[in-house]
Amino acid sequence: MTRFALTVEYDGRPFFGWQRQAHGPSVQQAIEEAVFSVTGETVAVHAAGRTDAGVHGIAMRAHCDIAKPIAPFRLGEALNARLRPAPVAILACEEAADDWHARFSCLGREYEYRIVNRRAPLTFEKGLAWHVPQQLDAAAMHDAAQLLVGRHDFTTFRSAHCQSASPVKTLDRLEVERDGDLVAITAAARSFLHHQVRSMVGCLAMVGLGRWSADDLADALRAADRTRLGLNAPPDGLFFVTARY
Amino acid sequence: MTRFALTVEYDGRPFFGWQRQAHGPSVQQAIEEAVFSVTGETVAVHAAGRTDAGVHGIAMRAHCDIAKPIAPFRLGEALNARLRPAPVAILACEEAADDWHARFSCLGREYEYRIVNRRAPLTFEKGLAWHVPQQLDAAAMHDAAQLLVGRHDFTTFRSAHCQSASPVKTLDRLEVERDGDLVAITAAARSFLHHQVRSMVGCLAMVGLGRWSADDLADALRAADRTRLGLNAPPDGLFFVTARY
Repeated sequence: MTRFALTVEYDGRPFFGWQRQAHGPSVQQAIEEAVFSVTGETVAVHAAGRTDAGVHGIAMRAHCDIAKPIAPFRLGEALNARLRPAPVAILACEEAADDWHARFSCLGREYEYRIVNRRAPLTFEKGLAWHVPQQLDAAAMHDAAQLLVGRHDFTTFRSAHCQSASPVKTLDRLEVERDGDLVAITAAARSFLHHQVRSMVGCLAMVGLGRWSADDLADALRAADRTRLGLNAPPDGLFFVTARY
Repeated sequence: MTRFALTVEYDGRPFFGWQRQAHGPSVQQAIEEAVFSVTGETVAVHAAGRTDAGVHGIAMRAHCDIAKPIAPFRLGEALNARLRPAPVAILACEEAADDWHARFSCLGREYEYRIVNRRAPLTFEKGLAWHVPQQLDAAAMHDAAQLLVGRHDFTTFRSAHCQSASPVKTLDRLEVERDGDLVAITAAARSFLHHQVRSMVGCLAMVGLGRWSADDLADALRAADRTRLGLNAPPDGLFFVTARY
């Protein structure tokens, strides 16, 4: 049995998320079926982050165990051939230690959230960004974001379906940068609560639109109360960028 | 009658090109129908470049004449509302002088051609880039590209369907730059022959793959013979970027 570490890029638009679902296609299922087609083995593919429906992966990390002897490069090529035409690509495939786990060994995760801030509707970026037509003050968003950095009870920014044992998490970095029409938000932490990035981005947008002050954001955090959430940003703009081990 | 200048972004994937076609949807038709829906007027929309099927627009310039009194901002918003869900967006709409012509007044056009140079298939960029799995030497491509800059007979790089009066054109700029997996080629000229950018990119790829030397490219240009073309790059990676007036 060999453990293989995969680096996976995927366009989340046609998927019901990373995790296998009874009611629709998932990235996990697509990769597991490709592994079966290559090896005849039914495997479980574990990922660093189980992204929601419509969320994308730039370099998701994942692993699975395969009995059939196969070189990592050949496995990656064969999986890509079998994955077509699904928008899932194996960017890298390497042998890993037996105790390396894509999810449990992960020391840090980074997400990027993309907002296109312009009047005109999206063309290329439809489903790949959140379209906000009203002017956003990205500098105000960045300043307010710093209030969320550090160790906090993030209950306000946590979905009702979150399975995490504790709502207390340490947010290492939350940065907002404008480049023309694009407002990009980078979030880094060891781990995140369910919907945490989208909830933080939604509230930062409230600040960017001038509907919330930075104090309103601080109050919402301190309240540790989901009903105090300003706005949950749509999945479209969310990208899992990197996992650190 | 007021002349309106439009700046248009479009994803060329679902279209048979800019120009109206009997056999399928075009960007021109989409905009002309939107104008009709807003004003009740049947207009002709003229563009700086009549891009081919599958070619994209970042900031195509176009114009049309409308009798109904309407403010430019309102017209742009109304067109965008009518264009949905087609991936065409009016980025800007302004009044223009009666003798301003999107095509004939244009003093310079710039295209970008995007190659994704990696083993793994494309996901997000499917149809938005040329996927070249073999390693390209972008520096060699850039050096060879300089042989094409200047005033030349570009017959080798011209499609059989080209309607230009002369195959002699002045190429102002042809630059190849690598950024990670992306190899981007920028081409600027007052005007281009039909398929010229794709044909130049195809031959530069021959150089990048090591199949052609820079001398082979120079020979192909000098031959002024379409049968000496190395390769015509697919439309997927081609973007009309800007028009200068």
